[in-house]
Amino acid sequence: MALVTVDDLRAAQKRIAGVAVRTPLMPCPWADTLSGGPGSGRTLHLKPEGLQPTGAFKIRGAVNRLAAFTAEERARGVVAQSSGNHAQAVAYAAQRLGIRCVVVMPDTSPAVKIENTRSFGAEVVVVPMHERDTTPADLAAEHGYVWVPPYDDPWIIAGQGTVGMEIAEDAAALDLDLRTVLVPVSGGGLISGVAAALKLTMPGVRIIGVEPELAGDAAESFRSGERRVWPFERTHRTIADGLRTNSLGVLPWEHVQAYVDDIITVTEDEIRAAVAVLARRGRLVAEPSGAVTTAAYLHHGDEFEGRSVAAVVSGGNVDPALLAELLA
Amino acid sequence: MALVTVDDLRAAQKRIAGVAVRTPLMPCPWADTLSGGPGSGRTLHLKPEGLQPTGAFKIRGAVNRLAAFTAEERARGVVAQSSGNHAQAVAYAAQRLGIRCVVVMPDTSPAVKIENTRSFGAEVVVVPMHERDTTPADLAAEHGYVWVPPYDDPWIIAGQGTVGMEIAEDAAALDLDLRTVLVPVSGGGLISGVAAALKLTMPGVRIIGVEPELAGDAAESFRSGERRVWPFERTHRTIADGLRTNSLGVLPWEHVQAYVDDIITVTEDEIRAAVAVLARRGRLVAEPSGAVTTAAYLHHGDEFEGRSVAAVVSGGNVDPALLAELLA
Repeated sequence: MALVTVDDLRAAQKRIAGVAVRTPLMPCPWADTLSGGPGSGRTLHLKPEGLQPTGAFKIRGAVNRLAAFTAEERARGVVAQSSGNHAQAVAYAAQRLGIRCVVVMPDTSPAVKIENTRSFGAEVVVVPMHERDTTPADLAAEHGYVWVPPYDDPWIIAGQGTVGMEIAEDAAALDLDLRTVLVPVSGGGLISGVAAALKLTMPGVRIIGVEPELAGDAAESFRSGERRVWPFERTHRTIADGLRTNSLGVLPWEHVQAYVDDIITVTEDEIRAAVAVLARRGRLVAEPSGAVTTAAYLHHGDEFEGRSVAAVVSGGNVDPALLAELLA
Repeated sequence: MALVTVDDLRAAQKRIAGVAVRTPLMPCPWADTLSGGPGSGRTLHLKPEGLQPTGAFKIRGAVNRLAAFTAEERARGVVAQSSGNHAQAVAYAAQRLGIRCVVVMPDTSPAVKIENTRSFGAEVVVVPMHERDTTPADLAAEHGYVWVPPYDDPWIIAGQGTVGMEIAEDAAALDLDLRTVLVPVSGGGLISGVAAALKLTMPGVRIIGVEPELAGDAAESFRSGERRVWPFERTHRTIADGLRTNSLGVLPWEHVQAYVDDIITVTEDEIRAAVAVLARRGRLVAEPSGAVTTAAYLHHGDEFEGRSVAAVVSGGNVDPALLAELLA
């Protein structure tokens, strides 16, 4: 399959404008003394995707996909499967674009996520865990719905890549000597798009993926040179519930091999501490999956090249009780 | 004194670019069902100023003032007085512009705020509470520093008004039928600038100030037609520590009379609930002062005209222990 191009990324920027929020690149002076010690001269900028209307970057890919539907596809409607941020993103995008939407969610999904998805006008089909991957295909076959996958799709990758296009634009406007960009890794849609966008527009920038140690399938894949699959029993142990996907997607894996410079891991303690620091000092509500990049900056910053680092905070859908616990 | 003009506001936008963050206007679909009940058709957009590098809108006015210094003023240095967000804003702006900075803080200031102000390279002079207003003038007279007041100043008002210019730009880009903008009121610098910006560029928009009931001096002034001063013993009772100023400034009062349509008050319980809702649903860390506008939207929304409401969330410097308590 082909890698996404600058034209794909620019077209995605136009499609998502006015639906996804164009998030700013936030300078974080408070982080200067927390990484590498005083005098390290390293600076952090955050890309706060929790500001999106559904609380995560996923809206970018969903809108890009649905806005590119043909008239015939629009009339058919859309089906998606997710227990988390992708479900809400597709539902929101479909509502905004006036497209019928069915979301398949496993019966282990928190009630609040089902309710949120319904609040965007989607029909939610709750199924047993083992049917969650087959039901969307069945519904698509029966009703003609267009299936929108969460990451293994060129439209989704180009949509998520708008995060990288915006980082490149803002780094230029701020005259940053940006050398390292940190991106959370799960199925790989986000890092694929961001890496393509930055390597194609700012070739000197290093792209580093960040994963929980407990769900380190992508780091292992990167080091071994072959796409590894971890059992869910392993990946589900991390608190970063958005990063429990058990392997990179096929198309993301091609992007990772072409454009990503390294994938590193962080511990559960580092993730928890980063959620607290982001709220206390960065004034951002971040979910654990979104905080992994800040964890990497704070605890592994001495491994990064260059003075300016940008970290994508991919979402903010954290359980309020967990946030309260980490702040107390 | 003259009210700020569109030219002043546009010049301020140019001066602050690259130092203050251009914050987005965030759609809040979660708020649709919380105000006026389903079917009210009212929508909320937030302007999240806690994303600024010092955690509050104050950076806008401080940068606008300091960037307009003459070469002679730059050489003299700057003095400011504040126990809160203005101190950090002036220190940060001075550091960015390479200007010597002295900040006078009362000895009742939390140690963390003194430390934060010092971390931006400012010299902090800690004085007894009763000397906090005279010391800056003494230091200015003795050392020639330029005094930068927190709100009673046309440069500061124009700087804070960039919030309003950005709201107008984004409302147009999003094709919003924006009819009501909610702004926190304390000394009045923010609402003066925002009201001028919007009335001069989108004349149909109503500007509503929001204040804690316990520090309702501006609401009382608005209703009575004369600028009222409340004793600090009254205003200091509110949890919204950024809104305890005991009267509007003289120049802000002129702007309020010219451009503000109403000033309403919210209760302490409404403010606390709004801080929690902003973190839980809006994924924003807001200080109580920043949450008053969301409190007004959620609890007094039926008084607002029109379908689209924008609320300025003025800052995010909340005590983490308080945030944890409100989330638990």
